[in-house]
Amino acid sequence: MHRLGEIALISNFLAPLATHPGAFALKDDAALLTGISASGLVVTADALVAGVHFFEEDNPADVAFKALAVNISDLASKGAAPQAYTLTLALTEAPTEAWARDFASGLRQAQERFLIALIGGDTVSTGGPWWLSITAFGEASSRGLVPRGAARPGDYLYVSGTLGDAALGLQLRLDAASFADALTSTERDFLLERYLHPQPRLALAPVLAAEARAAMDISDGLALDLSRMCAASKVSAQVMIGDIPLSAAAKCAVDAKSGIIETIVTGGDDYEILAAVPADRGSAFEAASRDAGVKVTRIGRVQEGEGQPKFLGADGSPLSFKCSGFEHFKR
Amino acid sequence: MHRLGEIALISNFLAPLATHPGAFALKDDAALLTGISASGLVVTADALVAGVHFFEEDNPADVAFKALAVNISDLASKGAAPQAYTLTLALTEAPTEAWARDFASGLRQAQERFLIALIGGDTVSTGGPWWLSITAFGEASSRGLVPRGAARPGDYLYVSGTLGDAALGLQLRLDAASFADALTSTERDFLLERYLHPQPRLALAPVLAAEARAAMDISDGLALDLSRMCAASKVSAQVMIGDIPLSAAAKCAVDAKSGIIETIVTGGDDYEILAAVPADRGSAFEAASRDAGVKVTRIGRVQEGEGQPKFLGADGSPLSFKCSGFEHFKR
Repeated sequence: MHRLGEIALISNFLAPLATHPGAFALKDDAALLTGISASGLVVTADALVAGVHFFEEDNPADVAFKALAVNISDLASKGAAPQAYTLTLALTEAPTEAWARDFASGLRQAQERFLIALIGGDTVSTGGPWWLSITAFGEASSRGLVPRGAARPGDYLYVSGTLGDAALGLQLRLDAASFADALTSTERDFLLERYLHPQPRLALAPVLAAEARAAMDISDGLALDLSRMCAASKVSAQVMIGDIPLSAAAKCAVDAKSGIIETIVTGGDDYEILAAVPADRGSAFEAASRDAGVKVTRIGRVQEGEGQPKFLGADGSPLSFKCSGFEHFKR
Repeated sequence: MHRLGEIALISNFLAPLATHPGAFALKDDAALLTGISASGLVVTADALVAGVHFFEEDNPADVAFKALAVNISDLASKGAAPQAYTLTLALTEAPTEAWARDFASGLRQAQERFLIALIGGDTVSTGGPWWLSITAFGEASSRGLVPRGAARPGDYLYVSGTLGDAALGLQLRLDAASFADALTSTERDFLLERYLHPQPRLALAPVLAAEARAAMDISDGLALDLSRMCAASKVSAQVMIGDIPLSAAAKCAVDAKSGIIETIVTGGDDYEILAAVPADRGSAFEAASRDAGVKVTRIGRVQEGEGQPKFLGADGSPLSFKCSGFEHFKR
């Protein structure tokens, strides 16, 4: 099996992705971003590590797509328009041509979908699991960056799409037995797909810039990410569990097995948007989201106080969760 | 031993380094760079992996310093002034407080020396060796980015500082016996220090922007990096081995053991500058470098042709090297 050296990997597979003029076709030591508007450049960084963020056996096309998608999700949540990204890739051995082709095709698919281009990066070797680290740049909206910490008591809380699908998809990967029997094969495929291919809500970026007081993407579970928004905003919040939007597949899983709702609220990997919108702008936000083609659902309200957000069940009593969400290392 | 969770690591040790106003004290999902001049933003990325770029037993302060320094070296070689950086850090287990304190102190030392501030990043876990990946941003000079690929036949080739010290320092780490007997303990310490603490030639950045036709930093050995400059510029070059600037310690090593000159020319980790300067600007470049406090040495000239650069020995005959320089993976 033919294996590629570092130079061949870069020139044959990565350089064709470096369509940004400031990338100099990856033939220089650095890239140049020009024409940056006065509103500024939004910068975000997210890495994926084999065995932590994805399975070693995952197709490199899916991994590459996801790595770019999760960074785009951050840009979208801040109201920014994607421009360029750097990629640092660490491999345990020289890749095969087939691997490189798959990897590059995943990046290309994401680049075309999210209108972003590679501008530079680094390739290194590692003795451990392979990983990739992306820093992504987006043009800020005229208001700058939609902050995480500006929610105010009384604001409506919205989320995009449906929550928990990716967490359930991951659970299907880890334990195919768990609740799989309750689902059709189409529903199982849907959840697995939602885990493999996050769909950042880029179309919502201008709506957030125009209407949201605060926003962030949900990557570590609604419970943890909402608690982060509340902490940063020095507020609390109340969410009606029954108002959390679920896919048909997730509804089946909830009905089939107790405790699934906890997975949905704390599981992570959603890459949906959480936004706090002034109550008197709620209908404008909903209308603009509809026009942008993104479903948004009101799940609760921001409240005064600095405690943990409350999640209320159908009977109005608060639910508590064993695990609040995903953290990389705990003491 | 007290170990830190992800949140404590960020808020207690990394957030104090995020002195850039667009970092929002690392409390948001992204950073915002504003006030970027029309000349643009130079972007570079370099990662370090334990067991590849540094030893597992190295002090995290040294590793952190080096990670930032090697990125600064790229900015300097492109004529840019450092502004901000993102840091993605992957750890195999929750760090101790002592580890986090050391790591942060190395970053702080580098930040203060190079006038750059943390603006964001990511912390993740990994099952493999720990690593850190940096993307650094610098303000471009008014001419944009000093390119790698613009050297022209007849240009003088200059390097900053002395070459090979870090490669010899690494060799001392790998095999303390090798040529160590020929050196005083001060000389050994000097070489080890040059390996541990690269000193990017930031003071040379404005001089390169003003006078150099092409420039890059030497990170993978003069032989390989010069061949890259030549390939990008579609030229060849001739270097007089005897003109390559050596430290007193490196000279002792060369005298003590045959083959050391090959280590010096192909060893890597120099983080000195290689510049091609129009011959009629040579004395101006030298004078401006002197004023900036950086020693530069003319080592050869750019030539027509597209072959490998030639390294000529004292008798005028070309030397060939077994290994042209450091590549991360080869087929």
